[in-house]
Amino acid sequence: MIKTIVLIGAGNVATHLGGLFQSKGLELVQIWSRSINSVKTLSEKLKIPGTNKLDEIVDDADLYLFCVTDESILHIAKLIGSKKGVFAHTSGSIGLDVFKEISSSFGVFYPLQTFSKNSLMPANEFPICIEGNVTNDMERLKNLAETVVKSKWVHIINSRQRKVLHIAAVFSCNFSNYMYGVSKTLLDQENVPFELLLPLIEETNHKIQSADPKDAQTGPAIRKDERVIQDHLDYLATYPSYKELYSFITKKIIET
Amino acid sequence: MIKTIVLIGAGNVATHLGGLFQSKGLELVQIWSRSINSVKTLSEKLKIPGTNKLDEIVDDADLYLFCVTDESILHIAKLIGSKKGVFAHTSGSIGLDVFKEISSSFGVFYPLQTFSKNSLMPANEFPICIEGNVTNDMERLKNLAETVVKSKWVHIINSRQRKVLHIAAVFSCNFSNYMYGVSKTLLDQENVPFELLLPLIEETNHKIQSADPKDAQTGPAIRKDERVIQDHLDYLATYPSYKELYSFITKKIIET
Repeated sequence: MIKTIVLIGAGNVATHLGGLFQSKGLELVQIWSRSINSVKTLSEKLKIPGTNKLDEIVDDADLYLFCVTDESILHIAKLIGSKKGVFAHTSGSIGLDVFKEISSSFGVFYPLQTFSKNSLMPANEFPICIEGNVTNDMERLKNLAETVVKSKWVHIINSRQRKVLHIAAVFSCNFSNYMYGVSKTLLDQENVPFELLLPLIEETNHKIQSADPKDAQTGPAIRKDERVIQDHLDYLATYPSYKELYSFITKKIIET
Repeated sequence: MIKTIVLIGAGNVATHLGGLFQSKGLELVQIWSRSINSVKTLSEKLKIPGTNKLDEIVDDADLYLFCVTDESILHIAKLIGSKKGVFAHTSGSIGLDVFKEISSSFGVFYPLQTFSKNSLMPANEFPICIEGNVTNDMERLKNLAETVVKSKWVHIINSRQRKVLHIAAVFSCNFSNYMYGVSKTLLDQENVPFELLLPLIEETNHKIQSADPKDAQTGPAIRKDERVIQDHLDYLATYPSYKELYSFITKKIIET
């Protein structure tokens, strides 16, 4: 069982997961961050020791959880060197194997959520995707995840599945958010408040909780409503980039 | 004041608005639909008279609310001919002027919501966008809207603003929903449940309730993270259409 944890990193992921671990009675023994200011902030918040020196990291924790940027994981792991505990990272796009030259016990503990201050979702309602080098590591990480979120949200997935989840998140979240930004720009120009769209956006997202999005598709493109599509393209003539975007995605929807 | 209403059409919009009108004490005097089956269904549901004959439509209602397809509005209005009450339609993409040759009293009563059986939003929490031929018509339609939804959701907007709202809804809802469909297709192929994405989608949409979506943009494109973008494009090699889509929107985000 994992009972003692060192957090490598002091950003949003470390802050949120650290808080969750503590609330479930797990012991955070130390925080490390390159930035002494980040160390101080999170140390004070969670009331645990912190350091910005890699050689001060303790040797006997059960888990070293890397909550740092993709690019830093391997670099920092090499500098820390081998420890008895499990090495795990929290990245959607770095493979399991990143630790293989450093540790014999390693895995992935990937929380599929964007952590922000005013969160809508309850703290225990997000997926944690687990991968492990050996069955034992996987089980230990899985047990840890199940102490943090509801067990229905804990999934064993491999690196390829984690990658497709990350890609799907780009489509569903980053690209959708871009569409919201386009909408706001257009509405601002006509002095129409963006807030007017929010109930429709909420309802659209509610539908996909029970229906396949492909069956829930509505709008002029799926209806092949040439009159409305042309009308919209005419309106967008003064926004060449948005017109191109509208036309491009409309074609994609019509093709499906 | 509008107290008596004839519903022209018996689809989702007529059903939902009709139910709301009744719940607020307004009198639905009649339903008309081309389809006698639709007339029967909605007549029985709302317990009001119905007909599929245009010449049986009553003469003395305060409002004739057109809840029919865009293409049918003018055609049906012409066949009904002039009445004393206000003619109003519920379409996002048809101008106010559609009625001008038929009636001297007309307007638009545009509910910006997608009505479905398992609705998330409370019935009085969606925008109604009002436009009127003359101030009097506009005021009467505005008062009607304010009996149905909270007054903060009632907005006077012109036809051009209504068009941009419709276009913004296409970007924010139809196009986002298409992105969800792409995600589901990709996840299905790797046996990853689409449900894993739902908390992240909810959180993404929650953010834009208090922040400008352009400030809330995250992901590899806005970070210009070439390694992750290339990694995702490599993965998508077996989905040429999705690869093209990923590449296209990524470029748009980078350009902004």
